[in-house]
Amino acid sequence: MMFLASDNGGPAAPEILAAVQRANEGHSPAYGADALMAEVTRLVREIFEAPEAEVRLVATGTAANALALGTLTEPWQTVFCHREAHVQEDECGAPEFYTAGAKLTLIGGEHARIDPDALARAISETGAKGVHGVQRGPVSLTQATELGAVYSPAELARITALARAAGLPVHMDGARFANALVSLGTTPAEATWRAGVDVLCLGGTKNGLLGAEAVIFFDPAHVADFDFRRKRGGHLFSKHRYLSAQFAAYLTDGLWLELATRANRAAARLAAGLAGIEGASILHPVEANMVFAALPRRIHRRLRAAGAEYYLWPFEQSLDGDPEAPLTMRLVTDWSMPDEVIDRFLEIAADA
Amino acid sequence: MMFLASDNGGPAAPEILAAVQRANEGHSPAYGADALMAEVTRLVREIFEAPEAEVRLVATGTAANALALGTLTEPWQTVFCHREAHVQEDECGAPEFYTAGAKLTLIGGEHARIDPDALARAISETGAKGVHGVQRGPVSLTQATELGAVYSPAELARITALARAAGLPVHMDGARFANALVSLGTTPAEATWRAGVDVLCLGGTKNGLLGAEAVIFFDPAHVADFDFRRKRGGHLFSKHRYLSAQFAAYLTDGLWLELATRANRAAARLAAGLAGIEGASILHPVEANMVFAALPRRIHRRLRAAGAEYYLWPFEQSLDGDPEAPLTMRLVTDWSMPDEVIDRFLEIAADA
Amino acid sequence: MMFLASDNGGPAAPEILAAVQRANEGHSPAYGADALMAEVTRLVREIFEAPEAEVRLVATGTAANALALGTLTEPWQTVFCHREAHVQEDECGAPEFYTAGAKLTLIGGEHARIDPDALARAISETGAKGVHGVQRGPVSLTQATELGAVYSPAELARITALARAAGLPVHMDGARFANALVSLGTTPAEATWRAGVDVLCLGGTKNGLLGAEAVIFFDPAHVADFDFRRKRGGHLFSKHRYLSAQFAAYLTDGLWLELATRANRAAARLAAGLAGIEGASILHPVEANMVFAALPRRIHRRLRAAGAEYYLWPFEQSLDGDPEAPLTMRLVTDWSMPDEVIDRFLEIAADA
Amino acid sequence: MMFLASDNGGPAAPEILAAVQRANEGHSPAYGADALMAEVTRLVREIFEAPEAEVRLVATGTAANALALGTLTEPWQTVFCHREAHVQEDECGAPEFYTAGAKLTLIGGEHARIDPDALARAISETGAKGVHGVQRGPVSLTQATELGAVYSPAELARITALARAAGLPVHMDGARFANALVSLGTTPAEATWRAGVDVLCLGGTKNGLLGAEAVIFFDPAHVADFDFRRKRGGHLFSKHRYLSAQFAAYLTDGLWLELATRANRAAARLAAGLAGIEGASILHPVEANMVFAALPRRIHRRLRAAGAEYYLWPFEQSLDGDPEAPLTMRLVTDWSMPDEVIDRFLEIAADA
Repeated sequence: MMFLASDNGGPAAPEILAAVQRANEGHSPAYGADALMAEVTRLVREIFEAPEAEVRLVATGTAANALALGTLTEPWQTVFCHREAHVQEDECGAPEFYTAGAKLTLIGGEHARIDPDALARAISETGAKGVHGVQRGPVSLTQATELGAVYSPAELARITALARAAGLPVHMDGARFANALVSLGTTPAEATWRAGVDVLCLGGTKNGLLGAEAVIFFDPAHVADFDFRRKRGGHLFSKHRYLSAQFAAYLTDGLWLELATRANRAAARLAAGLAGIEGASILHPVEANMVFAALPRRIHRRLRAAGAEYYLWPFEQSLDGDPEAPLTMRLVTDWSMPDEVIDRFLEIAADA
Repeated sequence: MMFLASDNGGPAAPEILAAVQRANEGHSPAYGADALMAEVTRLVREIFEAPEAEVRLVATGTAANALALGTLTEPWQTVFCHREAHVQEDECGAPEFYTAGAKLTLIGGEHARIDPDALARAISETGAKGVHGVQRGPVSLTQATELGAVYSPAELARITALARAAGLPVHMDGARFANALVSLGTTPAEATWRAGVDVLCLGGTKNGLLGAEAVIFFDPAHVADFDFRRKRGGHLFSKHRYLSAQFAAYLTDGLWLELATRANRAAARLAAGLAGIEGASILHPVEANMVFAALPRRIHRRLRAAGAEYYLWPFEQSLDGDPEAPLTMRLVTDWSMPDEVIDRFLEIAADA
Repeated sequence: MMFLASDNGGPAAPEILAAVQRANEGHSPAYGADALMAEVTRLVREIFEAPEAEVRLVATGTAANALALGTLTEPWQTVFCHREAHVQEDECGAPEFYTAGAKLTLIGGEHARIDPDALARAISETGAKGVHGVQRGPVSLTQATELGAVYSPAELARITALARAAGLPVHMDGARFANALVSLGTTPAEATWRAGVDVLCLGGTKNGLLGAEAVIFFDPAHVADFDFRRKRGGHLFSKHRYLSAQFAAYLTDGLWLELATRANRAAARLAAGLAGIEGASILHPVEANMVFAALPRRIHRRLRAAGAEYYLWPFEQSLDGDPEAPLTMRLVTDWSMPDEVIDRFLEIAADA
Repeated sequence: MMFLASDNGGPAAPEILAAVQRANEGHSPAYGADALMAEVTRLVREIFEAPEAEVRLVATGTAANALALGTLTEPWQTVFCHREAHVQEDECGAPEFYTAGAKLTLIGGEHARIDPDALARAISETGAKGVHGVQRGPVSLTQATELGAVYSPAELARITALARAAGLPVHMDGARFANALVSLGTTPAEATWRAGVDVLCLGGTKNGLLGAEAVIFFDPAHVADFDFRRKRGGHLFSKHRYLSAQFAAYLTDGLWLELATRANRAAARLAAGLAGIEGASILHPVEANMVFAALPRRIHRRLRAAGAEYYLWPFEQSLDGDPEAPLTMRLVTDWSMPDEVIDRFLEIAADA
């Protein structure tokens, strides 16, 4: 199988399953009072050099983002985010649900990175009408972005400085934070709170877990009423130890970085190969584990016929038509992708 | 450890972990399109003799109940439930959140079974004021109840007949449905849709899973917009196969019933032993995996000193005071509880 | 016409219409920035001896209560109120809507006065389960009550002391506050903030206005984000001066008390007359402008035949059946009710 | 006073106050059961040639729009509207509140008219991701637009045809519908349901009422649960007759059109005068009662010094700076604006 449709289609890492198995001994306090959760908190604080950070686990990225935004946002505020952001495009309105009806103000920017000038304008235009319009709420950015790019520390700092100047908290959707981090080669602290991030949703599911995400509040004041929101949203696990076990193993001995490194390498290999194919072009910087490319329709047809699974991006394109006309696609790699699969994919593409 | 605080404190059954391990091979479509989910649906339809039933999985009981009630209830309606119901007492307002602010009308009744006469009165008094008051919504009942009792088919039929006469759907919180079913010795169909239940939240987490619950819509029309609600609530799992794997294994070869049988037997053994202890009394029928008992304070002190873990029920009781005065307690057993633990508990209690 | 169905069926006082007419000159700033609103605030602060109070106007009692409770209550909290309270029985779930899904905990008590012991129990039982159950929110009481009784200062103080001890704010639904106040013969300050009330919804509509209610925050900190909630709820009037004009006239020269005095006198006259009729009984203290009475069916039939309009209370009673068997009714008077109407009603009743 | 800040700053028409006065006789059924409301419904059906239409009154335009959209929109849908629309810019998120968290998809277009091509694209791009993204909801347009333009019947038909083809209902925010209608010179039916409009929020407040708006459902099926939503939102008036009286008078003998004609004439006079002033330019078609113009800063300073009240539009402009540099403004006229005020305004501007 050549499965490049998503990084949520691959298996969990064996270390994760082993940890779940180990956790499955005897009785344990429920609802996050398990000993493994204390270990998760310890690991996060150590790795992020944030001894005060508060950590909470949930099972899906949508829950993590929506609960975090719900905690940071009043219903009459707006969240500033990129128009391609997952919270806007892929969560069926979960942020609106968890904020009791806040707005999202959509900002443009290349490669799904928020354009700082556009953000500055949007912030400045919001709230001028007093009670008639919605008010300024948090800035939410995605690292790595939905188009596989990564904010450099300087780019990140420009965004967070704008938020800070307006007194707004900064939320980072880090569904692929590990991929961004190994790409940046910086420390977790430099990539987050030292760069002005207040709340990080640290993804695990796309990077080798069964299903677990951490919400990290670098400023413990921001955790506020998160626990009530999580319970009320149905996201507090009774047998919480299985979430904890996944995350503790993930953060132990750098496993999370190792898995992300493998995924990123597979993407780089794929991009390098595609770059050499006539008629192909790479559309966005390949800085994490995603490749956005344009290929002639004839190559798509051949890839599909060979069983390659991936999305045309945007969805609304058709394989019918001029064989030379390019269609754009998204290819996503994960930690489990062997070189052989990448190479076979490239071979089919090149052969077309 | 003598852990009798809850059935969410025990381990998952080994068959479940083995199934998760087996599911962890290669790539799989996400979000419920996995092959194992088709198997879950097939199993539910077969076991419940309900070829049209629609099945959805989530990871927590609160999510299952709240999403089901959200789907069945308009915001200006009220849900009729027992005043001890989990949806009222233990979900931090999740039903209100997922219904966009519906009410719960609380009904009394012994052993946390809804009293049919009180239900009839409540239904009849609701909606008489037209637009000024809230309207009649679903009837929600819990099987087994929060106090460890089980509705007989006849009792169930009385409740559902009232709902049916008023045109109201019936929701069953079946967090311990397996325990009730083996206690009743009837078929899944007889215990649910043939008795007038429209939507069953079939628990797995308390009965040996890592964390998975099924929402079963016997009338497929009731599934309505559940899928949007689940996604928007952050409860649609990307790596859904791990939920499916748990539930498929659970329903295969009667494992779910075997696990419930073990838990019920442990409770029966416990209740029988307590009944023979001077000063002890059993407060509610022991028909599932919970024992509610009153014991003199001196016995509680001894049990606690020996490391027994359980809740005083209600919580607001103190171990200080007259050693002969009884305190009331909840003891919950699960599939993993060996006879030795029960016997040791009884020994300590008897010795006191 | 003998209209005793409600105090919302009568006309507005001529002084009110005259004030609206006077306000209808030239252009005026909108949305509450009109000069008349400043006058309303001045009057409220003076009359209530509360120089810091914040005042906001809306057009309906449901809006006033629901917005006030929305401002005081988190979604995962519960409002403690009487089970007969308007916020529970007559607002179609508006408090749930404006609080984003909080609960109401229903307390008993004679004559729709909250029983302090029952309140104390309810407060003490709430929140013990931590994140699993909803948390304690405001205490809401109605003055005069839904059954026409009035809390004495001492009764009020017992309720508010319980709230204060638990750190909970106190909301007073004062749809008939003027009627209660003239009945008590105390000062507005003694009847509210000096007795521990934090937020008063001061009714006008039932007492001679076209449609205007004031929300008075004695502690300005409690006003919080009320203005956003009001706008977002669609309750901020652009031509606000017409609300202001009504309320300014209402509070000028004691008009509000004069109107309430007339309504109360009519109720007293009615109750005195009914007390002399054989087979009649008065069910609740007549301390404001409502009379709850039981009369034989034959009297009801005669009254209805003569065109008297009032509600059987509760609604679910039938005029068919034993002519001597009593049915219970609610009779409401307003400022505009002439003695002749009362006397004719009594005459018909006596004659029966 | 030269008040051109808004059409909500002027007085109510004398006919309206007289009608309210006439309605203030004796007792009347509450909550919309008054005889005057029947007259309102009769008038709407007759005037709009819509014998099946359902009509409901509320007091504010925000309530009308938000309740209408709440009735038409599921929480997981998005409302397609212009990015300048009142529902987006001026209601503090009321649509999100009343829809329980739906999105608004913002469409561009000149003069605040929705661009049909952009709408077609937005509709086509929505919903493609299934449960992951929000779904298509109603199309909402504003007639006259927020920039004083009017959709021609042909322009309207293009928009509604797109909605119809996608199975989406059409909502018209008609806060200034009367102004648009007299500008178009067509019939109410041609301007609404015959052109594909399903629900019209027919403004009254900006056009000479004290505060009343009608929500007209041309297809009675669309009224659905509006009545519960209105009550629950606190927008059902107990003394409803005063809303009815306003609206009945408004629709009697063409008063609504007469008032709008006066306002439009004042705007035309203003625009004609400004067109002759050196350095001035008119920014949008003046087709209703609003003029958007650019004037050199020196003229603004002079107008302000003379007491003219109006908004710079957008707000974020400063009177400081180059005296010849133009600033853009919004000027709004209402029915009560005498020619003398317009002429004086123009005189000051010309003189500058």
